[in-house]
Amino acid sequence: MASKLITIIAGVGPGTGAAVARKFAKTYPVVLMARNPSNYDSLVEEINKSGGKAVGISADISDEASVKKAFGQIAEEFGGEVACAAAVFNASGKFVRKPFLELSPSDFATGYAVSGHGAFLFSQSTLPLLLRSVDQSPQYPPTLIFTGATASLKGGAQMSSFAAGKFALRALAQSLGREFGPKGVHVAHAIIDGVIDIPRTKEWLQGAGPDAKISADAIADAYWFLHTQHRSCFTNEIDIRPFVEKW
Amino acid sequence: MASKLITIIAGVGPGTGAAVARKFAKTYPVVLMARNPSNYDSLVEEINKSGGKAVGISADISDEASVKKAFGQIAEEFGGEVACAAAVFNASGKFVRKPFLELSPSDFATGYAVSGHGAFLFSQSTLPLLLRSVDQSPQYPPTLIFTGATASLKGGAQMSSFAAGKFALRALAQSLGREFGPKGVHVAHAIIDGVIDIPRTKEWLQGAGPDAKISADAIADAYWFLHTQHRSCFTNEIDIRPFVEKW
Amino acid sequence: MASKLITIIAGVGPGTGAAVARKFAKTYPVVLMARNPSNYDSLVEEINKSGGKAVGISADISDEASVKKAFGQIAEEFGGEVACAAAVFNASGKFVRKPFLELSPSDFATGYAVSGHGAFLFSQSTLPLLLRSVDQSPQYPPTLIFTGATASLKGGAQMSSFAAGKFALRALAQSLGREFGPKGVHVAHAIIDGVIDIPRTKEWLQGAGPDAKISADAIADAYWFLHTQHRSCFTNEIDIRPFVEKW
Amino acid sequence: MASKLITIIAGVGPGTGAAVARKFAKTYPVVLMARNPSNYDSLVEEINKSGGKAVGISADISDEASVKKAFGQIAEEFGGEVACAAAVFNASGKFVRKPFLELSPSDFATGYAVSGHGAFLFSQSTLPLLLRSVDQSPQYPPTLIFTGATASLKGGAQMSSFAAGKFALRALAQSLGREFGPKGVHVAHAIIDGVIDIPRTKEWLQGAGPDAKISADAIADAYWFLHTQHRSCFTNEIDIRPFVEKW
Repeated sequence: MASKLITIIAGVGPGTGAAVARKFAKTYPVVLMARNPSNYDSLVEEINKSGGKAVGISADISDEASVKKAFGQIAEEFGGEVACAAAVFNASGKFVRKPFLELSPSDFATGYAVSGHGAFLFSQSTLPLLLRSVDQSPQYPPTLIFTGATASLKGGAQMSSFAAGKFALRALAQSLGREFGPKGVHVAHAIIDGVIDIPRTKEWLQGAGPDAKISADAIADAYWFLHTQHRSCFTNEIDIRPFVEKW
Repeated sequence: MASKLITIIAGVGPGTGAAVARKFAKTYPVVLMARNPSNYDSLVEEINKSGGKAVGISADISDEASVKKAFGQIAEEFGGEVACAAAVFNASGKFVRKPFLELSPSDFATGYAVSGHGAFLFSQSTLPLLLRSVDQSPQYPPTLIFTGATASLKGGAQMSSFAAGKFALRALAQSLGREFGPKGVHVAHAIIDGVIDIPRTKEWLQGAGPDAKISADAIADAYWFLHTQHRSCFTNEIDIRPFVEKW
Repeated sequence: MASKLITIIAGVGPGTGAAVARKFAKTYPVVLMARNPSNYDSLVEEINKSGGKAVGISADISDEASVKKAFGQIAEEFGGEVACAAAVFNASGKFVRKPFLELSPSDFATGYAVSGHGAFLFSQSTLPLLLRSVDQSPQYPPTLIFTGATASLKGGAQMSSFAAGKFALRALAQSLGREFGPKGVHVAHAIIDGVIDIPRTKEWLQGAGPDAKISADAIADAYWFLHTQHRSCFTNEIDIRPFVEKW
Repeated sequence: MASKLITIIAGVGPGTGAAVARKFAKTYPVVLMARNPSNYDSLVEEINKSGGKAVGISADISDEASVKKAFGQIAEEFGGEVACAAAVFNASGKFVRKPFLELSPSDFATGYAVSGHGAFLFSQSTLPLLLRSVDQSPQYPPTLIFTGATASLKGGAQMSSFAAGKFALRALAQSLGREFGPKGVHVAHAIIDGVIDIPRTKEWLQGAGPDAKISADAIADAYWFLHTQHRSCFTNEIDIRPFVEKW
């Protein structure tokens, strides 16, 4: 019997991560990773109650031992031969914005820790599972998606830490796309250019009118679309922004 | 009663145009434009027979009078208050590739005639119909999609005519996105980076393995996805290429 | 005797064109082209009086016959075997900015007429003269420079005419760079991102402090630098903006 | 008396670094940094013998303590109030190219260690000295230049480590340009797209003809040009490649 295909999502919070989890959980068992279990506990329960299967794993994606342990738990849960239909890297480091000369070395390293090193660890852990899926002739090409931001394309003033991480993430996505695309894994990078509509941003952009903040569900639809693309027709980069956004 | 929403596709041939027509015809009446009726005749018949509605109109998209006449025919067919759910500009000028010093002025103008001037005429004719649709609270945001190519981003040697047109088309798409996005019209530009799998390209890329040529149906899926995006989550540019493509 | 090398500049006005003319006139005889002789008359006199050699030619760079006539005059003046050290395309069409649906077809065509068609005519006329110079082992590689703008990279709202032209110009520059670079002609595209300090812009950007507008002489220095680059070290694209510019 | 202005170059080897040192040493005392003194010893001697002033400092640019010590030596040598006319970050991490799944975490970190973390340390150490120079109304705007590569724009297959570092470096350069440009410091990023002609590359590109490898002296000319640009006319990004290079 073929291994059951799963989806692994790193960086599950109240916005994109949760919406992607709900969307992919309609088709696949989902593994939700976040540092703090409070970020996924209720969602795991919600998915499991509604007929899906979800497993929450607490992990620091920028810590090698923690990531290793997390993927060990996945193997325990789903078997050592588990294969992956999709993996979504949605983690983001702490956002540091201050005058450059006031940044400590660890402030500057913050962006890269998650978006560079963390994305590397996640990619090395998921790619073998995605490749394993290629061999099983799955319905959709196995897919590795990275969440980027405006700062993936443009380094703004006082944004060097965040931008350095997001630029590095985009470099990784491109490099993996070129290496693993021909092996059948769809690697895509999404540039989310705007504010996502979550409880924390409720007071933001007041007065900008309806739909000025991005619907996390709509992002999840876009990620699902990327996953379902035919391998003759891969999209490697997509931008996403509200209709009112200046860009 | 609200006007019936239609889709208008310029540049219908055996590949992308036909696939997009079939896809959108499942939901909307479609108008198919091409210079030569042989490019759409059998498709119009196919769609009409299978329960959809299609109208073919012969038009030279780079000729103002011809475009005017075509949109007059649309008004006759669907009423003067017809509104548009989607408009797809898929026309491409004759592809001229030769040493720069051997290009005649009209060779060079070939690319722009369709991709610049033609896209302008098409946009000016469809945008009022797309805006009309905004007022009718349609299920999906009205959408204007332009088909680009590798040459939209890079001017290769001996490719100045084609690239100048495709660059100009991208400029138009960006400008319209910024002007009409906030008015509720989704403007998107797709970069098709590869060879499309149609009868004419049957002998191409032999030996590159299966799915090395882009499935036109998969492009149509992507265009439909763009059309169905929520307005808080517009994608303005998408790239599409086979998994084996170098880029 | 080797033909004397000349520099040809299209689009000479009070800003970049005049400054480039003064700079290159220190080394080469210069041909100044503009539609209106009032744009170059006093400059031609100034250069000739100060020991240089300048010839002014009235030409509409977007008109084939006019361009042909102008290059006929050049051949008469400098001999049929004249070779070119540098050619600078600095012409820009009339700047049209209005709501897209209010553009007439000829409004839209304005940008391309000069930046697309005009640049094509200028390139076809100067490249043979630049190639001729390659054979004469000149001190600096023969150079063809195109002046771009912010709109070369970004199509702003209501800017479709200007941006379509400037995008097309960039496509042409890239294509020529790739075709003629290996033949020894340096093709470069400069993105001027800001307001140039000329009499017409005197009242602009008041309050932005000193040097908030670009010095035309500094642009000329940049163009001269491009011209003097070693052929192992060509710059194909350069951006130029005041230190205070947001970008 | 105003402090004497100096130039600091990190990453001095036989190519770009040495050429930049020779060029800037004609005008400023130069500080040459490299891990291994053998990389600068003979050059320091050469410059000092020929009437310039050069100081070599052994430092690991990716190590905070080492960088701190190096800048302490600079203060000892030139005084605590020394100001900087130019600072050039030319260091590059070890180049790692292998299949992604064979990369160790430290392999992947290699690119960022120098191009990200090292560039951060260098920037934080030199910017105060560059800002100090602004107050002294120097002849040329103080300038901070970063050396990038083809991989600054494109993440190739098996190039994730190097590209992630170079992308991060570009993000830093953009961010600093936007923060410190308005303060009068010129920040520029150079994309060196080709093989530099040094002893180590002597056997490379045989058969590509003369000047197929980039002259390091020509790069130094470009860096000097960037340094001498008027502040109304800053170039923030420049590409450099041999005339024969495909791009």
